[in-house]
Parts: sequence; C-alpha cells; structure tokens
Amino acid sequence: MTVKPITWIGDETGLLRLLDQTRLPAETEWIDCRTATDVWRAIRTLQVRGAPAIGVSAAYGVVLGLQTVAEGDRAAFNRRLDEVCRELASSRPTAVNLFWALDRVRRVADVDCDASSGECLRRVWEEAKEIEAEDRRMCDAIGRHGAPLLAGLNGVLTHCNAGALATAGSGTALAVIVEAVRQGAPLCVYADETRPLWQGARLTAWELTQQNISCTVICDSMAGWVMRQGRVQAVVVGADRIAANGDTANKIGTYSVAQLAQAHGIPFYVAAPTSTFDLSLADGESIPIEERSREEVAAPQGKLLAPAAADVYNPAFDVTPASLIRGIITERGVISPVTADQVRQVVGAPREAASGHAGERSR
Amino acid sequence: MTVKPITWIGDETGLLRLLDQTRLPAETEWIDCRTATDVWRAIRTLQVRGAPAIGVSAAYGVVLGLQTVAEGDRAAFNRRLDEVCRELASSRPTAVNLFWALDRVRRVADVDCDASSGECLRRVWEEAKEIEAEDRRMCDAIGRHGAPLLAGLNGVLTHCNAGALATAGSGTALAVIVEAVRQGAPLCVYADETRPLWQGARLTAWELTQQNISCTVICDSMAGWVMRQGRVQAVVVGADRIAANGDTANKIGTYSVAQLAQAHGIPFYVAAPTSTFDLSLADGESIPIEERSREEVAAPQGKLLAPAAADVYNPAFDVTPASLIRGIITERGVISPVTADQVRQVVGAPREAASGHAGERSR
Repeated sequence: MTVKPITWIGDETGLLRLLDQTRLPAETEWIDCRTATDVWRAIRTLQVRGAPAIGVSAAYGVVLGLQTVAEGDRAAFNRRLDEVCRELASSRPTAVNLFWALDRVRRVADVDCDASSGECLRRVWEEAKEIEAEDRRMCDAIGRHGAPLLAGLNGVLTHCNAGALATAGSGTALAVIVEAVRQGAPLCVYADETRPLWQGARLTAWELTQQNISCTVICDSMAGWVMRQGRVQAVVVGADRIAANGDTANKIGTYSVAQLAQAHGIPFYVAAPTSTFDLSLADGESIPIEERSREEVAAPQGKLLAPAAADVYNPAFDVTPASLIRGIITERGVISPVTADQVRQVVGAPREAASGHAGERSR
Repeated sequence: MTVKPITWIGDETGLLRLLDQTRLPAETEWIDCRTATDVWRAIRTLQVRGAPAIGVSAAYGVVLGLQTVAEGDRAAFNRRLDEVCRELASSRPTAVNLFWALDRVRRVADVDCDASSGECLRRVWEEAKEIEAEDRRMCDAIGRHGAPLLAGLNGVLTHCNAGALATAGSGTALAVIVEAVRQGAPLCVYADETRPLWQGARLTAWELTQQNISCTVICDSMAGWVMRQGRVQAVVVGADRIAANGDTANKIGTYSVAQLAQAHGIPFYVAAPTSTFDLSLADGESIPIEERSREEVAAPQGKLLAPAAADVYNPAFDVTPASLIRGIITERGVISPVTADQVRQVVGAPREAASGHAGERSR
C-alpha cells in the first residue's frame, strides 16, 4: 500500500486535501486547503514536504489562488496570478521543484491571451493535474532505473524521507528501495532519524513498515558506525535542488552521510526527477540554504533542552558535492559519473523559464 | 564557576550527593545516595555519567556498601567487599574508569589483613577521596597540556559532554577548551546535541554558557556541514576506554565526527586521564559496547515517534581507530602520534589489577 499525501478533490473549483505530515505517525489527519495561503502555510510549516510534493502542492495552490478571479477580466486574473505565484514562491527557498512547478502553471495561463479567465483557470488546473500525474510516472521510472543498483545487497541507508510522502507517487529514494525489495533484494533499510524534525523516524520508518519492509531506525550520529560494521552497502537519498554539475542540496546531514560513505567505500546515490535540476546554477555554491528556527533544535518535542544563553545553528539543508555522488537516479536513467557533461546529456539544456526566478532563488 | 556534580558529605559514615544530570538544564536537583545500590542506580540511569565521574562515584559507592559491615569481622567485610564491587561493576560496561576505581579501592582493603573492618572502611574512604582529588588535578593538567593545541583558533567542535559534569574536576575535553579561552583563544564552541540523550545540548552548552564561553548547539547531523563551512578548526572529545594502540571508545557519534574531521583535514583530539586506558586490550575490537533501550531513540522526550513495527539500533558508544586521532591529551602530556609505542611510553606498563576484571569487561 502506498500512501497518498496529496489529493485534489473536484474540478477546477475544488480543493486540495493534504495529509498533515507533522502529526505522523501518531495521527493521520488531513487538512483541506481552500486558498493559496492555506497551501503556503502547509508548505511553510512542513505539513507537506519533500521537493516533488512541494511542487505539486504549489501548482494546485495557484489553482486555489485563481478561483476568486475566474469570473473577472484577464488583467485582474493576470495580476492575481503574479501575486499568487510570488506568495507561494516565498514558502520555502531551497527546493527548486517549487519554482519549476510555478513556472509551468504560469506558462499555460500566459500562452493564449484571448482566453477567458475561467478558461485560463481550467488550463492551470489541468497543468497541475498533469504535473501530479507526471510525478507519479517519474517515481515509477526512478524505481525501475535505480533498483538494479541495490540488487543482492542486504543493507541500505537513507536519510530524511524521500518516499511516497515526499511525492505524488511512490517516492524517489524509497521507490528505488521498494522496487529493489520487490525484485528480491533482501534489504534491511537503516533510516537516519533525521534531526531536527525526525522525518526518518516518523515518515520513512512508517512508510516502509506499512509495506512490510524491514527497517531499523538509528540516530543520525550512528550512520558512520553502521557503515563501519558493514551493515549497509549503499546509501540512497532524495534531493531538493541539483546544480548543473551535479552538486546536490538535500536535507541537512546528507553531506555528512556522503562523506562517511566515501570514507567506507560505499556508493552514495541521489534519486530525483529531472525537475529537481537547476541548470541555471553552475554548482552548489549558490543554492540558497533555508535556516529555520532555534526551537526546532533547542526544544525537541516542545521541551526546552539547550540553555537560552547558547546560540543555535539550524540550516535545513546542506550541499553534497558531485564528487561524493556515485550516481543520480532520474526518471530518464542514471547519471554516472556525475559530471556537468553527463548531467547535460540526461537533463538537457537550461529551461528558459528557470531564469525568471533568480530573485526568489537567491533569497 | 565550575559545577561540582559529586560531593561526599561527612566522614566514612557519610553519604554521596550527586547532581541529577538527567534533569539538567531545566532543574538542578540533587540525589543523596546512602547505599551501593543507590550509586549503581545513579550510574545505570545516567544521573551521573562521564567516565571519570563514574569512577569516582563507584569508589564512593564501595564505601557506602561497606558501612553496614564496619562493626563485623573481616571475613564478612571481605565477602561484602566482593559483593559490592561486583554489583557496581555491572552498572555500565564500557567506561574502564569504573573498573579501575573499583580495583583501587579493593586493593587498599586487601593490603593489611590484620586491620579491623572499621579501619578498612576508613582506608577505602580515604582512597575514594584520593581518587576524587587526583581526578581534579588530572583535569587541570589535561587543560594545561591541551590548551596550546587550540591557540589562535576561532572554532572548535565537541561531542557529548566531557566537562566538569563528567569528572570530579574541570573536565577533560572542556578543560582543554576552557583553558584555551582563558589563555586568549577566541573560541566559539560548536556543541553536537548528542542524540539520543542530548548531553551536548543539555550539559555541554549549559556548562559553557555558565562560564560565559560562546557556544552554538547543532544537531549531530550538522557537524560535517559546519566543518565544510570552515567554522571549526579542531575537534576535542573525551573518552570512555582507550586500548593499548590508542583506539578510543566514546559516546556514539564520535567515530563519525572523527571521520568527518579527517575528510576536512581538521585535527581530532581525545582528552582523557591515563585511567581511561585499558592496556589489557591490544586494540578497540574487544571493547564492549553497551546497547541501550529502544525508547531512547524511538520516543525522544517521551513522545513515541518511530512506529512499533520498526527496529531500533541503539549502541551507546563507538570506537574511533587511532589512525583518525591526531593526539590524546592526558594529564602526563599529549600522546602524538597515536601509536602503541607512544601510548606505552606515556601511560606505562599494563596495570596488574586490570586483568582481574576481564570478566566484567567482556560482558
């Protein structure tokens, strides 16, 4: 059984139902988003998270934001489109799928200036549905391309959650793992708990055990020791943004895991759809890294542990250099070795629209 | 101001007052131990922790355990001595200072078979006091020997707590850091929060900020990124047991930090008194590693996060090979390079008594 964290209900006048991931695994609560601001808040507070899922949600968020102007003239519609895209783009800075999805829905509203606002809304909604459907197909393809890399292994480590909960489909890193298990690999999955927000313990372990896949939760600090003991023979993680040379931004801690894998001669793979690439960035240096509140670190589960006089540093992401990545598993195949040339061959030329969001990106 | 987590109150008929470190920093509670079992429980539940502090507490625990037989004959006294040492040795398996301290107090009770039980109790108490006083002097000497290694640096990282709370004095790793700051190094200390029990956030950050030393708390998974950004130029940690070749057992996560330091060309130092060496072990392979409960990982701050169907792996320690350690800072000087020869020169020949506890150690 695969979880489905994102569901659009109805036609273009409908609503977006999201699984509230902050309450998993204790509670399975759904939230109904009826405005773009509802979606902004859901992304901002991590009720929905994971780069592909953020992209799909944001696309539907634009639909919601335009529902109020479907009866008006196109000028008002276009002003509102700008406003909604700007708002949603400000929800989180690192995952590029967000900007990519906003670009896509904006473009379908722009193509035909004579269409009515109601017609444009319908096109935006259809594009959002298409983004969702593509995401599902991409997940399956990533699983198929990646599974052979884990054939015959008995242990794999992952960090954060790059599963069904992070996408509209079966996940990225977890799609690879689940497909490898389906093909017979006797995998035990070591899930880093992923401080500060425990996506590994709460989400990855939950998804895997729901599918009867053997999963062992460890603290992030144990990853090196688990490798030293020979318990894992590969690492697979997701990604939030990948630069043209393959440098990859992903959940904080990924960089440490990649260095540790390197030190133990263990291959480190990134699994992500091509929409995660930002070819406008030559390398990972200029990927903006979101910093989050001190409470996430200082007050775990709401209990204040670190003294008020101490500082806290809480970057939500880090950047793993391409040199530490054995391969990037995309829906079009595996990029390996990870070089700018190989990336260009698989992902293609820079997307035009990408440059339009430089402002949001450098924030 | 240095915290004093261990205080003996009165003469040999007195009691042991311990700071309950499980409740820091929110509450400063003291617990009075009146029996050896009280001390066993305090060590077992980590109310007192840190290898040197465990050793000092265990020595006083023997005093408490013998108080009931001070009026009886020596045969009963000796039986009780065996019993109490066996009980206390079972509290935690990894820190060798525990066995070392028990050996020392046992030896003074054994030397003169004609002495009365009361006289023997007094000698055991005096030896425990001497172990405590030595520990204080050792901390100061470690600080003096180590401080020059941090001269001129502006960032240092530490893992877990190897401060005053872990010793009867000013600490081991933190003694080095505090002394370096006193000598003028403009250090910001990055404290790994140290999952699963947050000794870094709760204890290290508390100790340092009490002394007005700049401290930034990070999640364990951020250590590599902090190194990559050039925020720290050295790592100093404590130790629970060091083998004859310099392989060092310390809090889980230490090994990962050492590998990350190596990858970034950052020197990694261990600070520990010579009582932490176990020269009966050729290398770290045979150091017993305590595994603790799944709840520590799965239910942080008492809130269940990982699903019941997931396994949990919770080793309390890991072993860092000597090859990753730039130097071991002891009260007798810095061992560097870290080789069996250098260890032997500084620490000396195997202690006779050490072999007596092989049973406990391999548990």
